[in-house]
Amino acid sequence: MSGGSQARRSETPVIAVDAMGGDHAPGAIVRGAVRAVREHGLRLILVGRSREVAALLAEEGATREIPIAHAEDTLAMNEGALAGWRRPRSSAAVACKLIRQGDAAALVSAGSTGGVVATSTVRLRTQPGVLRAALAVALPTRPMPTILLDAGANADAKPEMLVQFAHLGAAYAQTGYGVADPRVGMLTIGSEPGKGNKLARKAAELLHATAADTSAGAPRLDFRGNIEGHDLLSGEVDVVVTDGFTGNVALKSIEGAVGFAFDTIQEALTSSRLAKAGTLLQRRALRELSERFDSDTYGGAVLLGLNGTVVIAHGASSARGIERACLLAADLAGGRIVDQVRRRLHAPSRPHGWLHRLSHADE
Amino acid sequence: MSGGSQARRSETPVIAVDAMGGDHAPGAIVRGAVRAVREHGLRLILVGRSREVAALLAEEGATREIPIAHAEDTLAMNEGALAGWRRPRSSAAVACKLIRQGDAAALVSAGSTGGVVATSTVRLRTQPGVLRAALAVALPTRPMPTILLDAGANADAKPEMLVQFAHLGAAYAQTGYGVADPRVGMLTIGSEPGKGNKLARKAAELLHATAADTSAGAPRLDFRGNIEGHDLLSGEVDVVVTDGFTGNVALKSIEGAVGFAFDTIQEALTSSRLAKAGTLLQRRALRELSERFDSDTYGGAVLLGLNGTVVIAHGASSARGIERACLLAADLAGGRIVDQVRRRLHAPSRPHGWLHRLSHADE
Repeated sequence: MSGGSQARRSETPVIAVDAMGGDHAPGAIVRGAVRAVREHGLRLILVGRSREVAALLAEEGATREIPIAHAEDTLAMNEGALAGWRRPRSSAAVACKLIRQGDAAALVSAGSTGGVVATSTVRLRTQPGVLRAALAVALPTRPMPTILLDAGANADAKPEMLVQFAHLGAAYAQTGYGVADPRVGMLTIGSEPGKGNKLARKAAELLHATAADTSAGAPRLDFRGNIEGHDLLSGEVDVVVTDGFTGNVALKSIEGAVGFAFDTIQEALTSSRLAKAGTLLQRRALRELSERFDSDTYGGAVLLGLNGTVVIAHGASSARGIERACLLAADLAGGRIVDQVRRRLHAPSRPHGWLHRLSHADE
Repeated sequence: MSGGSQARRSETPVIAVDAMGGDHAPGAIVRGAVRAVREHGLRLILVGRSREVAALLAEEGATREIPIAHAEDTLAMNEGALAGWRRPRSSAAVACKLIRQGDAAALVSAGSTGGVVATSTVRLRTQPGVLRAALAVALPTRPMPTILLDAGANADAKPEMLVQFAHLGAAYAQTGYGVADPRVGMLTIGSEPGKGNKLARKAAELLHATAADTSAGAPRLDFRGNIEGHDLLSGEVDVVVTDGFTGNVALKSIEGAVGFAFDTIQEALTSSRLAKAGTLLQRRALRELSERFDSDTYGGAVLLGLNGTVVIAHGASSARGIERACLLAADLAGGRIVDQVRRRLHAPSRPHGWLHRLSHADE
């Protein structure tokens, strides 16, 4: 491993880990960070109340392995959109400061999604030419996950934003999962062209136009057209774009339905006379299913389009979840996803003006 | 049974069954209709090409049991929104004519949802004071199903429409499932008040205001506030309102996720050394799961708010599915759901003016 660690270390950017965010913080966070350093040779900074964090690092005998950046304040798990402004000294805010100063390239936090999105959007700002940052989640399709975005950052989106989400998602699929030429679909109702609500119909036009644009310098986009809710887990496309309201409803509907299927089957199995054998199979089959939906396995959601990589781990993340989130952040930051997005969305100076204004209009 | 049949017959309205709609039409439709008459004492009229239908009735030895209304034309399964205007002689259109003439109270069709929605909306019109008809589906929660609407009839909805959907859904839960005082929730992102997109935030305000209105004659509405995607199958509410775009995406996401869970578990089971026992349990457990999602079990979607009851069975409906759809239509028409909706949405004369204009504005 040390060889690999060395190799990785040489190219690995520094990741600021929010030690105070999450249901099991700071304990699980620090343990996960230590695993990420020892097993994958990542370079981390733990951000949080230094005495607490130092004590936990000492427990792991890792005092010298991970530096600490002090932050006295923390975001509550129910922290909403105002957190960005209200909590300049929160561990998430201090981590963003490290990124702005160039001391770190990425943030990993298991804090409240709303709070982390607000804090990092306000403190890292969107990249030049990016209208809005979007929250991307990896759905457990095979062989490669399908990236769904926006999963909730922008409840009211504009058609142009969905085109940008397509580029953000494609950059994620390339950098995070090595998909050479990501296939992009748009979530709507009815797979035929012209189906959907006003936003979807207009966005589809723009996506087709963008895909058709082969002029020099135009970023390549492989748009496959409309997909429906039941296609989200079919793996037909690598990236699915939609507005943050629809995306969040779809994601949570899927999670709820899988849990429902789970319980229904469990009932049926344990109520059968074959209950005993059932329990065995159950463990095997249901573990398989749950692991595919376990956020620990995927490392969490990624907020794309900011001047820095932001990975938001599940609030209930275990040490392993934090370890995975750090790995994902390292892959994305190491793959220079921010530069990739800049290349894809590079807007000539004049448009840049209104894009930039628009992108900060209602902040 | 004959006693029950007699009892039912005396109170049962006539249902016009579209013999030509559906993947297995007219065979499965006619067989289902015969079962509905013989086993439940329903009163039906089969609408379609009379020679074909008569021949099938003869095969079942049911020539005298169900009258036939001739319709030379049929809607194609891919028939869209224009069908309403384009196909005045389609079996669905002729069935609507029977309702307008008072010869039938309900329509059952397994034809394309788009075509049946368009045809019946154009030919039956919305009830006075109803802005838009909404498509309602019953999610397989326990002990009672949860009614989700709109499931796709109105891709772009207005906040006032969601308030009406709440009343339509409540009338359905009462008439179709005997829920005395249906609990209504609104589908959005984030359960806290003020979460969601513009439409959801405004609609929630109106729903709270409606629920708070205790003035004489105001229809009672038990609004429980926001629910999220993962609550759709939790049975926390009896009715979930949303716009047709979000509702359709949520419904199909659920269907896709259940299928996905299904396959994942099947894989895991059959790949295990206990495969054999697995197959046994599987059949048991997965049958249980599939039955709960089998549209045949629920009789199909209901288009609410028109001058007549419209039940749209799944396109792949078997004879049993058609039988169930006829039962559902009989329960709804017998329970006078149209009158219930009228009572709930009865609007005083002046408002009625603009409501009515609005409701027919872009038809």
